Amino acid sequence: MFTAERIDLTVDGDRLWQRLMTLAEIGATAGGGVNRQALSDEEQRAWRQIIEWGSVLGFEPFIDAAGNLFLRLPGEHSQVPPILIGSHLDSQPQGGRFDGVFGVMAAFETLETLVSSALPRSRDVIAVAWMNEEGSRFAPGMMGSEVFTGERDLKSIREVSDADGISVGKALDDQFAAFPDLSPRPPGFPVYAYVEPHIEQATLLEQADCSIGIVTGIQGKRTYRIRLIGAPGHAGTQPMAERSDALMAFAEIAVHLQQEIGQRDDRIKFTIGRLEVTPNAPSVVPQSVVFSIDLRHPENAVLNECGERLVALIRVHAGDCRVEIDPLVVAPSNVFDLKLQELIAGSAKHRGYSFMPVLSAAGHDARHLAKRCRSAMIFIPCRDGVSHAEHEWAEPDHVTAGANVLLDSVVSLLGEVC
Amino acid sequence: MFTAERIDLTVDGDRLWQRLMTLAEIGATAGGGVNRQALSDEEQRAWRQIIEWGSVLGFEPFIDAAGNLFLRLPGEHSQVPPILIGSHLDSQPQGGRFDGVFGVMAAFETLETLVSSALPRSRDVIAVAWMNEEGSRFAPGMMGSEVFTGERDLKSIREVSDADGISVGKALDDQFAAFPDLSPRPPGFPVYAYVEPHIEQATLLEQADCSIGIVTGIQGKRTYRIRLIGAPGHAGTQPMAERSDALMAFAEIAVHLQQEIGQRDDRIKFTIGRLEVTPNAPSVVPQSVVFSIDLRHPENAVLNECGERLVALIRVHAGDCRVEIDPLVVAPSNVFDLKLQELIAGSAKHRGYSFMPVLSAAGHDARHLAKRCRSAMIFIPCRDGVSHAEHEWAEPDHVTAGANVLLDSVVSLLGEVC
Repeated sequence: MFTAERIDLTVDGDRLWQRLMTLAEIGATAGGGVNRQALSDEEQRAWRQIIEWGSVLGFEPFIDAAGNLFLRLPGEHSQVPPILIGSHLDSQPQGGRFDGVFGVMAAFETLETLVSSALPRSRDVIAVAWMNEEGSRFAPGMMGSEVFTGERDLKSIREVSDADGISVGKALDDQFAAFPDLSPRPPGFPVYAYVEPHIEQATLLEQADCSIGIVTGIQGKRTYRIRLIGAPGHAGTQPMAERSDALMAFAEIAVHLQQEIGQRDDRIKFTIGRLEVTPNAPSVVPQSVVFSIDLRHPENAVLNECGERLVALIRVHAGDCRVEIDPLVVAPSNVFDLKLQELIAGSAKHRGYSFMPVLSAAGHDARHLAKRCRSAMIFIPCRDGVSHAEHEWAEPDHVTAGANVLLDSVVSLLGEVC
Repeated sequence: MFTAERIDLTVDGDRLWQRLMTLAEIGATAGGGVNRQALSDEEQRAWRQIIEWGSVLGFEPFIDAAGNLFLRLPGEHSQVPPILIGSHLDSQPQGGRFDGVFGVMAAFETLETLVSSALPRSRDVIAVAWMNEEGSRFAPGMMGSEVFTGERDLKSIREVSDADGISVGKALDDQFAAFPDLSPRPPGFPVYAYVEPHIEQATLLEQADCSIGIVTGIQGKRTYRIRLIGAPGHAGTQPMAERSDALMAFAEIAVHLQQEIGQRDDRIKFTIGRLEVTPNAPSVVPQSVVFSIDLRHPENAVLNECGERLVALIRVHAGDCRVEIDPLVVAPSNVFDLKLQELIAGSAKHRGYSFMPVLSAAGHDARHLAKRCRSAMIFIPCRDGVSHAEHEWAEPDHVTAGANVLLDSVVSLLGEVC
């Protein structure tokens, strides 16, 4: 467990903050945020920057065929499973400066603090940046961690295309071509433990004035892609009674789903974030509509019930339109490793950081790692709970605190018998 | 008025049909339709084809700075205002083989029939293809005819951009550069009379089994661009009660508008054809939505009343979202020249074509010409009233009939005292 004599190690908060701000310049948006989507030129530039920083310190970069980036700090016994820490570098199209990248750079800072200390390392410690956590360019997200853990196969993710028709396969190959010195390995290897730091993306910590959240688990999630197929017509001539207007069918469906699902209780989250109209011309009655549904609830029973109700409601309110429903993600709620939760709490307590247990309402790569190895997450507050937005913000003190707790957790894990 | 001795002239229906099918190959879609949007490469190719056909026959091409294309068949008195006939070449993104191009090619066929006859021509007869009637790439449409008639100024249309950020000005300059032999003239010149043939885009003619529609007028139209501005948030964490979801506000508005405006009476046409969501990502609560409204009614009083009601309803149902409403088009119903209507009816009667008066529910360039000169329209039926769709269809016999009636009208107009 957590041992007091080891916490003379501490991260360099200023260095970590500077690096985060340097990375925020890559794909910086006019509104102060970041657009660094999965496998984009911007993500390539972020990779290059981090590999360069790591090479000076002796971190060994390697990649896998799923587009995950790893930096290895070798330990004494490189044949035993390593400790894996990190998060993701990709952002939403109008994302912020902390979501994902904070976890990757807190892991980097942990490696740097370890390498510059005299602390013996029983096993490798590896920092990771998972491919496409966000799922905004290629849906659904968490592709890198799901392929790593064997939940999805590489072939199926390579076939997914973005809005411009570029496939993950093509984007991955381009990414690999940009790093000819790193030849991609087959995805997946045994992991001793996984710890992921992240901003909370909610207001529990902020409201309780806590610096550290010990994440108990991740609420369940279901996502869908729905297609409504009507018939096109001339806006000026087709009688209203003869129309099969896909956008009007959507509106009717959305209002009913919002009433019956979105207002079910105060823990449910129901979102239609993406919608495309065809042909999308002002004087043509919409022929078809494709939209996304993101449904979350901490109780698996409620999630399942709402998932079934949702499908029924869509069919009832689609009018004349034909309906196609593709379930994309069916992820039940999970619980993180209790001993790792204690380890994190012990560190926060020892350092004098206020802390509390929190349930993660958002999904994270740790959900998938948890199926394969002991896993945990460390949350820090973000202003007003805002994320996936350009004005997303975390305080420097909280960034430092999160990295220190990660460092302590790794130090404790290194102290366990190999 | 219409004189019987002149109708020994008749168009070559096969030649006209072949030319329409040749033009349908430019921008042909997989679904059997046409994508030949305003100032696109496809429209350029259509221009080139028509100019080439005309050059063999001695038709003199010229263009104006608004991107309108003209083919002149010179008459005896070229200093007096010409007879202008035609329509437009641009299509919807998934449009058909007749909307617009039928009118242009019926005009071309009329010129060809005239040039190969011994009939003296008192004045010039000019075929026209107006720029951007559809308004699908650059909104709102009818740009070419509105600049020609002085209702909009060239500068303001040049500033309008398409979804890719390309302005009309840039697209016009590219179009002109592709035709270095044609230097664009200032838009507008006096016109003796304007006649526009077109498919009906409704089922009145088909249901009455009529070949020719004598268009009495065009129903009034109002169009709007509406913007709803909410706030982005994380789909998994932001509580439902704290959201300002722009897409949900849209759905609420659309359902109420459909109920109160779209079902007002059986003559109203209410369409939301275009909608864009920002940032349009599955796990982000929509920050903003931009959508179009197209509202039409033959009675100006009803149109005005619904226009006002619509604005009030949007504001009431926008929830927390900020609302911006831009009226784009406010066009009252109009009535076409009665003597020209008689002329067209006389031709149809003489040739033995079944005919009837019809009100145009769709807008046409003739609406604008009618403010400057005697104007009329000739409709032919289209299958099931369908247009703005890939399976839009007109029968060869109706295409021939429409062109013959146009030819007769021009012959009669040429016979009027100069």
